[in-house]
Amino acid sequence: MKKYVVGVDVGGTNIKLGLVHPRGFVIARSHFPTKPFSSSKSKLITVLAKEIKKIIACEKLEIREVVGIGIGLPGLIDYGKGIVRFLPNIPGWKNVPLKSILQKKLNMPVFVDNDVKLITLAEWKFGAGRGVKNLICLTLGTGVGSGLILDNRLYRGAGNAAGELGHMPLNEQGPACNCGGFGCFERYVGNKPLFALASRIMNTPDMTTPKMFALANQGNAKALRFWHEAAIRIGNGLVGVVNLFNPQLIIIGGGVSNNEKFLFPTIRTVIKRRAMGLQASMVKIKRAEFGDDAGIIGAQVLVYNAKNF
Amino acid sequence: MKKYVVGVDVGGTNIKLGLVHPRGFVIARSHFPTKPFSSSKSKLITVLAKEIKKIIACEKLEIREVVGIGIGLPGLIDYGKGIVRFLPNIPGWKNVPLKSILQKKLNMPVFVDNDVKLITLAEWKFGAGRGVKNLICLTLGTGVGSGLILDNRLYRGAGNAAGELGHMPLNEQGPACNCGGFGCFERYVGNKPLFALASRIMNTPDMTTPKMFALANQGNAKALRFWHEAAIRIGNGLVGVVNLFNPQLIIIGGGVSNNEKFLFPTIRTVIKRRAMGLQASMVKIKRAEFGDDAGIIGAQVLVYNAKNF
Repeated sequence: MKKYVVGVDVGGTNIKLGLVHPRGFVIARSHFPTKPFSSSKSKLITVLAKEIKKIIACEKLEIREVVGIGIGLPGLIDYGKGIVRFLPNIPGWKNVPLKSILQKKLNMPVFVDNDVKLITLAEWKFGAGRGVKNLICLTLGTGVGSGLILDNRLYRGAGNAAGELGHMPLNEQGPACNCGGFGCFERYVGNKPLFALASRIMNTPDMTTPKMFALANQGNAKALRFWHEAAIRIGNGLVGVVNLFNPQLIIIGGGVSNNEKFLFPTIRTVIKRRAMGLQASMVKIKRAEFGDDAGIIGAQVLVYNAKNF
Repeated sequence: MKKYVVGVDVGGTNIKLGLVHPRGFVIARSHFPTKPFSSSKSKLITVLAKEIKKIIACEKLEIREVVGIGIGLPGLIDYGKGIVRFLPNIPGWKNVPLKSILQKKLNMPVFVDNDVKLITLAEWKFGAGRGVKNLICLTLGTGVGSGLILDNRLYRGAGNAAGELGHMPLNEQGPACNCGGFGCFERYVGNKPLFALASRIMNTPDMTTPKMFALANQGNAKALRFWHEAAIRIGNGLVGVVNLFNPQLIIIGGGVSNNEKFLFPTIRTVIKRRAMGLQASMVKIKRAEFGDDAGIIGAQVLVYNAKNF
């Protein structure tokens, strides 16, 4: 009897579902937009339950073939209690006991966690971090987050809020951050500051990292300088965690990591130059293997870990 | 049958030994200076073995009452293999298989580890961190180090080099550090930069933190300003790890932590102001409970953990 998991990746724009095979393959997918339902929690939960049932039915699976539902959400989640504490980009979600609500609706085990933690689980179990005991999975995008696998376990911290690498300060007098801090890593390598850097270097408004990637591929010197500077920023931000965690691996994911060839050599050089000798010599930098499926696959790992399979 | 541990704390100046009771009490102590033996590894190991035997004999213990020997050393130690990789302040120690050498000489189990890791184990098991699942133990002195208890275990990292909080950069353009990095935490809160800050504020050479403590106790305004600035530096350096680890507790030890009353309120204020809301609300700051005995007591925890008592 195969044991499938329905993985759900709740984003601010889309909600993705996938039926995940025990070995991490996504065998069926569906998705729907978040916006039409984001005004009402109960509407969103109702459609979520409906879509979960639908994807199971479409594959003609029996309920006993589904081991559970894993759901990743972009915000502060109490994994232990199954409560969504707060979602910065989906209004109205405060202290929602999503696990128990959905378990009643679906009559199946449900597990909820932060989306970056699920991406980390996916990369560690099936992706770039297979077999690695200590790793950091960095996600670069509008927000900058990370997940920590330490001694072969996802490290959650006291309130399941560990991993906020995007809010590690890089400069005491740096720019103010939404989080209340100053000079946070995210203020240097999030999409907004990178787009601003690109626009400044190109002396053109509205530059984006995809545009800079295309230009760099054509050999544009300014675009190459942009990627060099972005890589120095990323490398500088990683020196501290390399010294602190002595990890074997840092996995870099998110849109910007598509530009591996322009970024990674410089990131490695910066770490070699600025981090401590042993730590720098032990750490590898790899690109995340999963793109859009990472959250869904990570949901499978979450459920399997929780059920002790 | 009681199970004692001989704990050894190897420092650059003195080597301290203690016989540690199963419940963490030090029931006998001895010490000898490092210098006369530091020119020769084998001389130092020979005197170490002799002193270990002596402290056991003095207490009229039988060998079977001693469960093992725990040794903390100031440097890079391969705990798993029992090899001293490198001691920055005791010349000539490179890749010394101290565990196996001493086991042969003593015919007892020997465990070796980094000294800050042992201090962390002591505070976690018997001191300020009793019963705490996730904590950081910061040691302030000439060097700045830390130990990490994550999910009820000492986190070592891939090469047993984790915890180098003193070498987390606080400013990308900060002063160069011996480690090769720039703007490391240690360059702001190690003894040397704190003494320099004190001398600058007092406009007097050779100021030290004990002198500044005495002056602050007399209500000297400049000395109070010094402690305020030192606390801001320490607090700023802790914001990153509070966001990253979401710990319940930060234990601060080392000479400077004696000045708790002048330091801790400001450190707490800085963390509350600069760290993320949930993380800041969950973290307590406490002073280390053990002083000179911490390494010896931690050696007991090391041995007990290794033997799975």
